[in-house]
Amino acid sequence: MPPSPRSTVRRLPEQARYDAETVAAVLDAGVVAHVGIVHEGAPVVIPMAYARVGDTVYVHGSTASRMMRALKTGDAVCVTVTIVDGIVLARSAFNMSMNYRSVVIQGRARPVTDAPERMTAFRAIMDHVVPGHWETVRPPNDVELRQTLVTAVGLDEVSAKVRVGPPDDDADDVGRPIWAGEIPLDTVPGPPIADAAVPPGITMPASVSGYARAFGSARPR
Amino acid sequence: MPPSPRSTVRRLPEQARYDAETVAAVLDAGVVAHVGIVHEGAPVVIPMAYARVGDTVYVHGSTASRMMRALKTGDAVCVTVTIVDGIVLARSAFNMSMNYRSVVIQGRARPVTDAPERMTAFRAIMDHVVPGHWETVRPPNDVELRQTLVTAVGLDEVSAKVRVGPPDDDADDVGRPIWAGEIPLDTVPGPPIADAAVPPGITMPASVSGYARAFGSARPR
Repeated sequence: MPPSPRSTVRRLPEQARYDAETVAAVLDAGVVAHVGIVHEGAPVVIPMAYARVGDTVYVHGSTASRMMRALKTGDAVCVTVTIVDGIVLARSAFNMSMNYRSVVIQGRARPVTDAPERMTAFRAIMDHVVPGHWETVRPPNDVELRQTLVTAVGLDEVSAKVRVGPPDDDADDVGRPIWAGEIPLDTVPGPPIADAAVPPGITMPASVSGYARAFGSARPR
Repeated sequence: MPPSPRSTVRRLPEQARYDAETVAAVLDAGVVAHVGIVHEGAPVVIPMAYARVGDTVYVHGSTASRMMRALKTGDAVCVTVTIVDGIVLARSAFNMSMNYRSVVIQGRARPVTDAPERMTAFRAIMDHVVPGHWETVRPPNDVELRQTLVTAVGLDEVSAKVRVGPPDDDADDVGRPIWAGEIPLDTVPGPPIADAAVPPGITMPASVSGYARAFGSARPR
């Protein structure tokens, strides 16, 4: 999919990627999306759980959420997912950077009203956050489904940016007696904490005991 | 500072905080901000380095950046900082949640043109990302300063949301034979990687060797 004028990365275009594989990999590795809308003329950016299914990204939220209520059919929306992989320390303050992967989707909101597609979105969002966990929980009932709005955004105008590797210092700075390099950052899950009311006979499902968000191993090098 | 109508959290108001200490603590613990603007009628959300100085948040970027060029005096801007502390797994899909800390600032862009304030912002942003590192690097020169736009946003309309603790299941679900609990998530720095061109005599500064982003210890409990 060639980029549109507004999805073409101008700043540091050498970090831009437009291939579907890179876009999907970043979206699948992220935890939360930052969803932006225009509300009464001003931008509003809220962190939300999300999932990618094919070339669609779903977000869902309460019917009591202003963000969700504001998302009408055809409204412009921006969904941005960022994973910070490290801090890049150059010899100069100016060339400080981050190693990161990000995806910016610009599109139009499509409220999802079809019952099977809504259930697909619910399941995808849980399985995005904790793969395989959907099978272990009570699925949404009719009351809960009525209390939830689901919005879809197509991956039509989308760009990724990926930075990897060492600092990019000016030639004049490389000889200076200044340390330079990278501090890697990973998102690491800790030991799961069972709710106090879980009965002794209930063991942790494999989706939890085996949870290992593949941030580290999925990091580009 | 009492919240304005638009900075009053409607959804899950029991998670809302408006005190300056909580707002400052979340802003100081985050790594990147997601900055939203309205460009040609549509929202655009971009991850950016930032820093808080008192009741001001600074972001900076290249004069070649569309985001930065689009930020004119008085333009509406939203700066959102999110730290995900864990995944909250309930007995029902509907009550899946995250433990997190977030701050949403709605305000107006103020381009920073005063030279001392610009240098304050540069220094603050580097020291936010890696405390104390500014002292070890070459500061920006006049050419670099001219290539950089700095924007300030005041903490006038700001809200924080903080969720901690176990899942909040419906009473009817607690007795079900389903595991529930939390998977904590931390952002963890790895061993620093020196740039290949750093001469053998140059040792890692304390800002790098002692780098320990206090996500874990700063987590609310």
